[in-house]
Amino acid sequence: MDMILDAIQVETPGKGLHEITHLIADAVTASAVEDGVCLIFIKHTSASLVISENADPSARRDLASYFDRTVPENHPDYTHTAEGPDDMPSHIRAALTHTSEMIPIAAGRLDLGTWQGLFLFEHRSRPHRRTLALRIWGTQ
Amino acid sequence: MDMILDAIQVETPGKGLHEITHLIADAVTASAVEDGVCLIFIKHTSASLVISENADPSARRDLASYFDRTVPENHPDYTHTAEGPDDMPSHIRAALTHTSEMIPIAAGRLDLGTWQGLFLFEHRSRPHRRTLALRIWGTQ
Amino acid sequence: MDMILDAIQVETPGKGLHEITHLIADAVTASAVEDGVCLIFIKHTSASLVISENADPSARRDLASYFDRTVPENHPDYTHTAEGPDDMPSHIRAALTHTSEMIPIAAGRLDLGTWQGLFLFEHRSRPHRRTLALRIWGTQ
Repeated sequence: MDMILDAIQVETPGKGLHEITHLIADAVTASAVEDGVCLIFIKHTSASLVISENADPSARRDLASYFDRTVPENHPDYTHTAEGPDDMPSHIRAALTHTSEMIPIAAGRLDLGTWQGLFLFEHRSRPHRRTLALRIWGTQ
Repeated sequence: MDMILDAIQVETPGKGLHEITHLIADAVTASAVEDGVCLIFIKHTSASLVISENADPSARRDLASYFDRTVPENHPDYTHTAEGPDDMPSHIRAALTHTSEMIPIAAGRLDLGTWQGLFLFEHRSRPHRRTLALRIWGTQ
Repeated sequence: MDMILDAIQVETPGKGLHEITHLIADAVTASAVEDGVCLIFIKHTSASLVISENADPSARRDLASYFDRTVPENHPDYTHTAEGPDDMPSHIRAALTHTSEMIPIAAGRLDLGTWQGLFLFEHRSRPHRRTLALRIWGTQ
């Protein structure tokens, strides 16, 4: 059982959930792992990962809206404000979601449910380049 | 180090935290892995996983109540409403908890703390059949 | 590919985010794993793990404040109150963050982003001794 190391760069257009399932699926295919697991780890604290409904874009918009409402910008209690009004909410939203996801692999493919997609959740307003570290292992 | 693949079906009676520790413990015993890890991955976006207090049922009820209060049904900002009032809150509650959990294995058993249990958190009102993909690996 | 088992005890002074990146980095160095992954699992339900901004202490204070505000003590709906006013909020805050984190290893070191640190998030008011189970594996 070997472990394949990979890394992916994703350019985000700013806030919101951006689907990256296809990028991970391509890396799994290239790995030639048949049965195993894939770790996806985002190397940032103001962007995160979420597995959620991938069929209807309204679901991901409502999910982003929830975080806009409940983790607002410009809260009077924030003291970490030097990097802009969208910075501290970014760290909170990242902590409430996930820095890494583990996805099983079966028969050489991501073993996701029918309606599951992997999303990079960008929390900053401006476009960013985000780096994901991948680890893929199992039986080939 | 081999990797054991397994899958479990769980019938949920509707909303709430349903303990599944014993189902994972049985799969670990069957795997014969002595020292390793177990990945539990739920293949759904309206049910999720949480490791929490397993001794007093009031703890899991209060945990479910927290999500009922803070991620309400019928919020006026929801646009993803075609699948019923419990659908969009389900996706948000799943994003706030976990699609997968990793549990260490030691001496052939789940290496959990004294008060830890693994719960399937059903977010839909009606009963559902949920599928969990398992991956167990380590030294035998 | 072997799997290294380890465990760490951490004494917390009470509520807040306590950085433990250096403890995990030391365990990874001792493991001699060059390219792989590290699982960190906290064996408690009233303390949790978060990867967040490690440069400016104001970020971790604001993160803790967010949970103090939004998951308050003494909520009238809590029924699980026998272990004190800080107990039920602890379980909720743990469910909203993480019982485990997976961190990639590259060239013998934790492959974290520039501003990422791993924090033990203590949710109880009094000091506690917390146990972390580690699993480290990959190519040596």
